[in-house]
Amino acid sequence: MGNRGWTDEASEILRVGEGFRLSDVDPGSHPGYAGGKKSAEKELAVGIEALSELQERLFAASRTGDAKDAVLLVLQGMDSAGKGGIVRHVVGGVDPQGVELAAFKAPTKEELEHDFLWRIEKRLPQPGFIGVFDRSHYEDVLVGKVRALAPADEIERRYDAINAFEARVAASGTRIVKVMLHISREEQKERLMERLERPDKHWKYNPGDVDERMLWPQYMAAYRTVFERTSTEAAPWHVVPANSKWYARLAVQELLLTAVEDIDPQWPAAGFDVEAEKKRLAAT
Amino acid sequence: MGNRGWTDEASEILRVGEGFRLSDVDPGSHPGYAGGKKSAEKELAVGIEALSELQERLFAASRTGDAKDAVLLVLQGMDSAGKGGIVRHVVGGVDPQGVELAAFKAPTKEELEHDFLWRIEKRLPQPGFIGVFDRSHYEDVLVGKVRALAPADEIERRYDAINAFEARVAASGTRIVKVMLHISREEQKERLMERLERPDKHWKYNPGDVDERMLWPQYMAAYRTVFERTSTEAAPWHVVPANSKWYARLAVQELLLTAVEDIDPQWPAAGFDVEAEKKRLAAT
Repeated sequence: MGNRGWTDEASEILRVGEGFRLSDVDPGSHPGYAGGKKSAEKELAVGIEALSELQERLFAASRTGDAKDAVLLVLQGMDSAGKGGIVRHVVGGVDPQGVELAAFKAPTKEELEHDFLWRIEKRLPQPGFIGVFDRSHYEDVLVGKVRALAPADEIERRYDAINAFEARVAASGTRIVKVMLHISREEQKERLMERLERPDKHWKYNPGDVDERMLWPQYMAAYRTVFERTSTEAAPWHVVPANSKWYARLAVQELLLTAVEDIDPQWPAAGFDVEAEKKRLAAT
Repeated sequence: MGNRGWTDEASEILRVGEGFRLSDVDPGSHPGYAGGKKSAEKELAVGIEALSELQERLFAASRTGDAKDAVLLVLQGMDSAGKGGIVRHVVGGVDPQGVELAAFKAPTKEELEHDFLWRIEKRLPQPGFIGVFDRSHYEDVLVGKVRALAPADEIERRYDAINAFEARVAASGTRIVKVMLHISREEQKERLMERLERPDKHWKYNPGDVDERMLWPQYMAAYRTVFERTSTEAAPWHVVPANSKWYARLAVQELLLTAVEDIDPQWPAAGFDVEAEKKRLAAT
């Protein structure tokens, strides 16, 4: 990778590894990035071009080549953490033909009759695509745990089920990039208040957001368990400080760039005789 | 609408109405637009902002309001006519969270066992979304007719079936914007040749493209029948000259802007007591 203004590899410093503690992460910090908002916005624009081209190669390699590679970005975070902004400003720069976006809401009755991974499996990206999960199967061990929507032993079962599921997805050629957008409790209050103060933002506000907010410590505890149990070699977690939207966007873009660069997709060779086709076309 | 550099309403002058003849349309022309490439690129960028905001309103109105409005852009055209470029450069400017894209390929075995509209119905946009069909049910009366993939009386049946289907979709609140990107035979030759000359474009080339090209007059005849039979009040066709990519993109953007402006979506009123919520939030 080029360093693109990063002093360290974002995929390393943001990664949830041995000895990670959520309480060590300052949601207002900008780890690994020395620049400020202005330079980050410039780098975001440059990165969009790079990500676009890499995505096109990834797509091309899967169409006529044998490549099975895909990327799956899993976005989690408390309400107003900026998931939508990532989709709009980071993923939005990529050709929509190469993106598969799935926003998971509260499960429907039909979905609840199946295992919690049933609806997830159906939305996995095809080879050549960048899939994005706006919320995901992790809701089933986050709100599922905090709100006791399932018995404790079922919640317990899910961590291993998730690891087995993600290991299989990774083995099939999908790079899984798991991101928790980490905002502070105070920052959330300001963002929710802004939604209440602006009539054009009222539709984004839900009185239930405040109910969830009151369970902040329980949610943080549930996230800690998620990190302990499901940050694996095949699918590690990254905690991205997200009080500064510009930093969070640049960091997630960097994680995506690193994932696709690691795949290093190549333009596939023609599956036909190029010179013969030129002649055939010229004759028409 | 603002005039945005248009001397006439694009939705009127490009519309397939009484007395329309495909042979009257010059694929290299720029009807209704007085500017050139440079000014069109500037207007495209401005239009992206406008379309983005309108889409967000459309989405918001459908979430908490009662609005059932959606937009469906149907894109047809010969190979290399620029459908992908429209998706990337016009639709790509809109928040991916508000777009539902469906690229229709040759039908699968399962799809062939159903009526031709079965797979189409499943991909209609939900309220609040801009749906895009990259190819569509019209393939079933274009390649379906030219290649005689169905008996003549079945092809004949389909025109009325399409009109009834689209009338129902329109009545349910979806504005249907049907666009044929019209390039000349010579322009197609140049574009296909470019794909053969550039190794990074080989993956976009398919030897079958030349076979289809050899049937150009038959395809144009099939399009003429499509326009005669299916350009209705509820879902009119627009033929967009597309030899100049910049013109085609600006024109399709203009058609989309006009459709959403015509809906005129409004920010929905809050479904909760704003002042009470402010107090509740402030107390947390």
